[in-house]
This record gives sequence, C-alpha cells and structure tokens, in this order.
Amino acid sequence: MSEKLNRLKEVLGEVSDIGHAASVLGWDQQVNMPPGGGEARGQQLATLGRIAQEKFTADEVGILLEDLKKEFSDPDTDEGAMIRVAARTYDKAKRVPPDFVAEQAIAGTKGFNAWVEAKGKSDFSIFQPYLEKNVELVKKYISFFPSADHPYDVLLDDFEPGMKTAEVREIFGNLRPKQVALIKAISETRQVKDDFLNRKYNEKKVWDFGESIITKFGYDFSRGRQDKAPHPFETTFSVNDVRITNRYETGNPLATLFSAMHESGHAMYEQGVNPAYERTSLESGTSLAVHESQSRMWENLVGRSLPFWEHFFPGLKKAFPAQLDGVSAKTFYKGINKVEPSFIRVNADEATYNMHIMLRLELEIGMVEGSIAIKDLPEIWNAKMRDYLGVTPPNDALGVLQDIHWSYGSIGYFSTYALGNIVSAQLWEKINKDIKDLDEQIRKGKFDALLAWLREKIHKYGHKYDPQDLIQKATGSRIDSAAYVRYLTKKYSDIYGL
Amino acid sequence: MSEKLNRLKEVLGEVSDIGHAASVLGWDQQVNMPPGGGEARGQQLATLGRIAQEKFTADEVGILLEDLKKEFSDPDTDEGAMIRVAARTYDKAKRVPPDFVAEQAIAGTKGFNAWVEAKGKSDFSIFQPYLEKNVELVKKYISFFPSADHPYDVLLDDFEPGMKTAEVREIFGNLRPKQVALIKAISETRQVKDDFLNRKYNEKKVWDFGESIITKFGYDFSRGRQDKAPHPFETTFSVNDVRITNRYETGNPLATLFSAMHESGHAMYEQGVNPAYERTSLESGTSLAVHESQSRMWENLVGRSLPFWEHFFPGLKKAFPAQLDGVSAKTFYKGINKVEPSFIRVNADEATYNMHIMLRLELEIGMVEGSIAIKDLPEIWNAKMRDYLGVTPPNDALGVLQDIHWSYGSIGYFSTYALGNIVSAQLWEKINKDIKDLDEQIRKGKFDALLAWLREKIHKYGHKYDPQDLIQKATGSRIDSAAYVRYLTKKYSDIYGL
Repeated sequence: MSEKLNRLKEVLGEVSDIGHAASVLGWDQQVNMPPGGGEARGQQLATLGRIAQEKFTADEVGILLEDLKKEFSDPDTDEGAMIRVAARTYDKAKRVPPDFVAEQAIAGTKGFNAWVEAKGKSDFSIFQPYLEKNVELVKKYISFFPSADHPYDVLLDDFEPGMKTAEVREIFGNLRPKQVALIKAISETRQVKDDFLNRKYNEKKVWDFGESIITKFGYDFSRGRQDKAPHPFETTFSVNDVRITNRYETGNPLATLFSAMHESGHAMYEQGVNPAYERTSLESGTSLAVHESQSRMWENLVGRSLPFWEHFFPGLKKAFPAQLDGVSAKTFYKGINKVEPSFIRVNADEATYNMHIMLRLELEIGMVEGSIAIKDLPEIWNAKMRDYLGVTPPNDALGVLQDIHWSYGSIGYFSTYALGNIVSAQLWEKINKDIKDLDEQIRKGKFDALLAWLREKIHKYGHKYDPQDLIQKATGSRIDSAAYVRYLTKKYSDIYGL
Repeated sequence: MSEKLNRLKEVLGEVSDIGHAASVLGWDQQVNMPPGGGEARGQQLATLGRIAQEKFTADEVGILLEDLKKEFSDPDTDEGAMIRVAARTYDKAKRVPPDFVAEQAIAGTKGFNAWVEAKGKSDFSIFQPYLEKNVELVKKYISFFPSADHPYDVLLDDFEPGMKTAEVREIFGNLRPKQVALIKAISETRQVKDDFLNRKYNEKKVWDFGESIITKFGYDFSRGRQDKAPHPFETTFSVNDVRITNRYETGNPLATLFSAMHESGHAMYEQGVNPAYERTSLESGTSLAVHESQSRMWENLVGRSLPFWEHFFPGLKKAFPAQLDGVSAKTFYKGINKVEPSFIRVNADEATYNMHIMLRLELEIGMVEGSIAIKDLPEIWNAKMRDYLGVTPPNDALGVLQDIHWSYGSIGYFSTYALGNIVSAQLWEKINKDIKDLDEQIRKGKFDALLAWLREKIHKYGHKYDPQDLIQKATGSRIDSAAYVRYLTKKYSDIYGL
C-alpha cells in the first residue's frame, strides 16, 4: 500500500511543481515581463496548465485514490487528509470536460475585453450579452455536479470547501442589520480628520517603512521578497519562497503600508504551513476566507489599531515630519479608520466594506437562480447601494461595472472577502483570551506570540482541515459574525464617540 | 501529411514552452530568488526537464519524424530544416539512457562541490578523482553514438552541430603560430596606459551608460530587460522576451559596459530570429560559436574600436570628468585594448584569449583520447601556459582549476569561444565589403545598417542552417582564421606601433 501512496505522492509532487512553475511565470508577468513577452507567456502558461491537468486527471490517479481512501480513512491523519483533499479535487477536475474549460476560458477573455470597453464608456449594455454568456456557462458548470441544497453551493465550494450558501446567508443575515445601524450611527456624528493622509509622501521612504513593519511582523525575507506590480498580491513558489507585490499610488500614498501588511498576512500563512505538506494536496492555505482572515488581521486588527500606531507612529513621524506636523498617534489612528460610505469596494473602510460584499452575493445568487435578469443588474445594484450605504452610484463604471470578477466569469468568490473579515475578528477574540497582554505586546512592537499562535492554530495545518472545521478547532465555534460586530462596535464607539 | 506535421509542431511547441518556462525559473533563480527558494526550485526544474524529455522522446515523435523526413526532404525549406534538426535532436536524446543522464547529473554535482573545495584550497588532488569520474562518464556518453572520425567529434557536435575535431584543429593550427608571434611582438614594445580604468566609477552611471549604448545598438528593451546577477548571461523566453544580466565589479568598473555589449549581442541574435520559427526546432541561434560571434562582434569589433569611442567617449567623459581627466579617446581606446598575458581566461584581452582556449581544447582531446592522464593535468597546463603565453600560474587555482566547466562534466564547450572570435572577424570583413562606410556610421553612433545585415544574413535563420553552412552562405567560405589574424594584426599594429 505504501507503494501506492508513494506513487500518488509522486504525481501530486509533479503537479505541484508544474503549478509552482506556472506561478513563477505569472509573477514574472506582473513584475518583470517586457511588453513583448505577453503572447508567448500566455502559451507557456496554457501548456503548463494543460500538462498539470492531464497528469492529475489520469485514470491511474483515480484508481490510486479509490484504493487509498479505503486504507487511509482517518481524516485526522496527514495521509487521510491528503487523500481526502486530493480525491475531492480529482472528482471536480474529472466532472468538468476539458472542452467546457476551454469554452469558458474563451468566453472569459471576450467578457474581459467587453468589460474593459464597457467600463471605459460606463455603459453596462456593452457588457450585458457577455455577462449573460458567462452566467449561462456558470449554470452549465453547476450542472456537472450532483444537485446541491442550492445551486450556488457548487460555486462557493470551489473557494470555501464545504461551505453552504445557506450558511453564508445566515452569517451575513445576522451581520447586515447591525452593520447598517453602525454605519448610520457613525454618519450622524462628527467626521474625523484625515487631510494629512493626502499629502505628498516619498515613495521609497513609504516602501521602506512598510518593509520594516512586515519584518517586525515576522514575514521572512530570506524566504520571500516584495516587488512592485500593478496590483498587490501574494504568490507561493514553495513554503520557502513566498513573495508579495505592492504598489504606490500618489493619490493614496500610505495605502502602500496597509497593502504590505495585508499581503504579508497572506504570505506568513503560506510560510507557516507544515513543510512536510510540500508537493502534496495539503500544501498552501485551506481556503480564500481563511487566507483573507490572515491578511485582514495583520492589516486591520493589528495595523489599524491604536496600540500598533502608538508603537510605530513616532518612527513614521520621524520619516515624514512635515507631512505629519501637529498630528498625534491618536489623530492618525482616527484618520486611517475614517468611515465614509463610498461607491468603490476596494477603497471601502472596515465599517462599510462588508456591505459591498453582501450586495454582490445577493446579486450573484439571483443571477444563478435566474431570479435576477442580467439587464436589470445596474438598477438593482444602485437600489441596494442606497439601501445599505445611503449612496447612489452616478454611473455604471462606479457601480455595477467596477469589479473585474464577473468579466471573466468568476462567480462565487466575493463572499470570501467578508467571511475573511468575520473570521479575523473571531480568531482575534480567541487570541486575546490566550495572550492576555496582546495589546501591550503590540504597543511594544512585539508580534512573535501572535504569529506563534497563528502558526500553531492555523498556518501549520495547510489544507488539512476545511475552513469551518479549522475555525471550530481554533476558536471552539463555527464561523459567526458576533465577534466581528463586537469588534466594529467597540472600535468605532471609541473613534466616533458613539 | 500536413496532419502529421501539425502533430509534430504541437509536440515541439509543447516542449519549447516547457523549456522556456524552465528558462524563466532559471533566470529568476539567478536574479530574484530568495535564499530559501533553492531546494524547491531544483525540484521544479527537474520536473520540467523530465516532462519535456518524456514528451520529446515519445515513440510517437520518432515515427512522425521518420514519416515526415521522407515527405519534407528539402533542407532548404523551413519544414525540411525543422524536421532535420528535430530528428537529429531526437536521435541524440534517444541514444542516451535516462539513467545515465541521472548518473551524470549526480557526478556533476559531486564534481562541482569538490571543485569548489579544491579551488578554494588551490589543490588539484582534491578534484582529481571527480574529474576522472566525469571523464569516464564522458567516454561512456561517446560510446552511445556511432563511432566518429574522432571520439571528441561527438562532444563537439552537441555545441557545434556538424563540426569535426579535425576542422577545429586545422583552424586553430593555422591561427596559433601567428597569434603567438603577435603576442611576442607586442610584449617587446612599450606598454599602453590604462590606470584610468581602475579608478572609482559610480555603479548606476556605468549601468545607465551601458544601457544607452546597447539601446543604440538596437537591443529592443520592449522585448527584453537587463538585470543584476552574479554573472552576466543572456536567456530567451521567446523571440519577444530576450533578457540579459550584468554585474558591477568594483575592481573592474567599466567591464560592465563590455558585458552589456557582449550580452546584447547574444540577445539581438535571439530577438532577430524569424518569428515563424517560434516553438519549433528552428527557434534560437544555431550554435554556440555563431552565438559567440555575435556577442564578440558587438563587444570587441564594435565596442573596442576607435570609431566607436570617437562617438561615445565624449559622453563617457561627461559622465566621469574626474576619472577621465586628461584622457583622450585614443588613449582610452588603447587602454581598453591593452595586451598582457595573464593566467585567467575570462580576464584575457583579445590578443591572448584564444591561446587559453587552444590549451583547453588540447587537454580535453587528450583526456578523451586517454593520451593525457588526469593526474598530469596541472603540469601540462602550466607547461602550455609558458609555451603559449610566457607565464607560469603560481598555483592550481590560477591554473587548471580556474574554470567551472570540467567540474560538472562539461567537455567540448571551450572551443566555441575561440571559434566565435574567429567567425566574428570573418563576418566583419564581409560586412565591411557590403557596408563601405561602416566605420563612418559607427563614428556617428549609427548601427542600424550593421544590425540589418546581421538580421538578414545570420539572425533570421535561427537553427535552419548548421554553423559551417551558415557562415559559408554569409561570407562565401567556411570558418577560417585568416580574417581574424588580419584583424588582430591591423588593430595591434596601430595600438602598439608594430
């Protein structure tokens, strides 16, 4: 039997190597590639993807998995978990015909191009037929799978293994009225100052300050690096080579700091996975929501907290004395936490962010169920924006066309962002019970106990447990928004004197 | 039949994609990779290499090639050439058993480690048993091939397709006495000044000056880039993504300029191959010697010429007024062409460089024939150094242990460096016949006619013609050292007043 296990590991190792090679090519494409390189790079990535798919979906792998499932049936062992996760991925890969994957890719490219034009002209009607096609294909994708409690479950499962639409609805349903009420209460108080955030900050100094922060966090530069790219992201080539990218926007110069913290959160998760899981189905973080819980925790619960800036603000002020003249740590803290309902999700503050997600989830479910006609999306979008945030997008570009995801047919992804926020607060409460003086430690710029906790309770497990099980194991309960509501309420009560 | 051709192209395309992906990974390893990334990267490269090998050596490919060879037998057509080159590579790949390739790789790694230690301690005896093993494996490698005129032919053919040991010996045999005589004549004249080359030059300014030169040459930065790496090299990811690396050595600050010119010569060759050859056996330059003829031409025949510096020296002096105070273009030109027999090949000037190569070729042939015992190498090395260059290495590190090549079992490579020099001068004579005012153009900083000539006569053909045939086609004769002797004699007569 160990011979079969070894053979499976051999295949999984090869597939992982190819996937990581593709990640290097993808990273290079964003970070280094000269303009001419695009066409060949696309071909190289397509070839690697096809080979990995062929190797992984070979009938031999299916037979191996069937045999091994019986032998290693205990999901609490590494072997059992490895086979369970590989078998699930195998089943998914086998259900979707290669021709369909190709069709979806082509529709995605066409959709993306139409979306770019539509967004440029702020005219949803240009994108509408392509989105209709994308949704049609998503429905076909769902049809390849056994019928679920809700068709949207199939999509969700690709990003959050085991998560159900009903669960997400319940979690969001509990959260929504409380978050709406909080936003309303804040809107009735006096707004905080943040003009000092819009001054001119030297790019290199901001970049270096960000690197000094994430070095203190524990992001290991001997097993990673930070480069400039059009968008911040994290990418994994192995547990010992986990890179992040970042950017500098003149209109929002200190965003670079928060992006560095965010991406380092993803990266520390990847750097902390049990090295024994390398080149198996257990490598890497377990789901997008759990991943996002890590990035959001370092960005928001740590990086937008008062203790954090009590430690770092003097250094920042030393680097930017003119820009921060007369600004105190507390004023700075309030400024970076300013709540202001706005049109664009990616610029949203912590208090309003989730509302953008809930809106998208409802629209996605409606599209998949067929209860929402694509042509009606702009109108429904704007109505919900008024409902949740009290603002009305003046045009489609600032409304329904803002996100890239639907353009290439990605539906099912958005809720992981909000779930990540929710999980981050849930973990945070538990961590603060286990590390009594965490605030004190952060105020001293010490993060080792925090990172050690995350390593031990989350990171090291990689893909071993599904997200709900992992959160249950770490906190004693399944994903629940109560902690997040408590966190937001306490934070903004302090900032806005509610 | 076109169906079979399409299928062959499909396989060659896939193999090319995997090879280029591996090149990206290799480039990243040299340029970006954090220290932790090494182990996984080795595994990823091994996996890609194995998959490419499996795909290319599949029996299906052999059958396709056999069938297609009959149909497309005219080597002057692209299809005929493509099939001829692919069939030759296929034949080689099939002859060498995978187990042997693995054995050689392991011996190479051990040899490399022993060589590092031996060189550090300047003690050849540490490396001797490993070199003996490497040579034994090289002999075994030769045994997989049909017997040739000379066993060394098999090795040479891997780098210079179709080239025979007897040909190289004849070419070198004609050259050696003339080059020895030239070096002797120079040694009897008054040495030129070059102290200004050893002053402190600002790294960024040197780097930027190098980039301004190669931009003028015609290296297309929209299809390439230059990065820092421990060693200068060129690497190809596609005809539209051809990158170079460079370094800055405080002890030899302006070497960065000549390395940029050298690597851009390789890169312009790759950027100039017919795009229709992409993802086939005809992509990339045809041989190492022809490649080296391009890099050496831009570095030496252009970049170490008087007209070149008559154009560029004012700009260099403006960038470095203190360092070049009182230095004229002519003095600078003489300084960068200083001839001085020395121990280390990679630092050798144009007049002495080839002698280092001839020495190595003779030793390699002796090792392969068995006429030279490995243990005697240091002694023979030093005797030949006295003979050819009039200097005796004081120790093994500065003598027989200086090059990396033998450490990992690479034998057969060295002569391509000297052949490249020879071919560069041969092409140069022909180019000067075709472009009458080339010197004048260079003096004006214009290189477009030169590059157009190289594109038309060399670059665009890629792998279509073997090196001797290509040179014949371009110059009217096969590889011959006469032009190189004329070039050296004229150049150094002028510089040293011979």
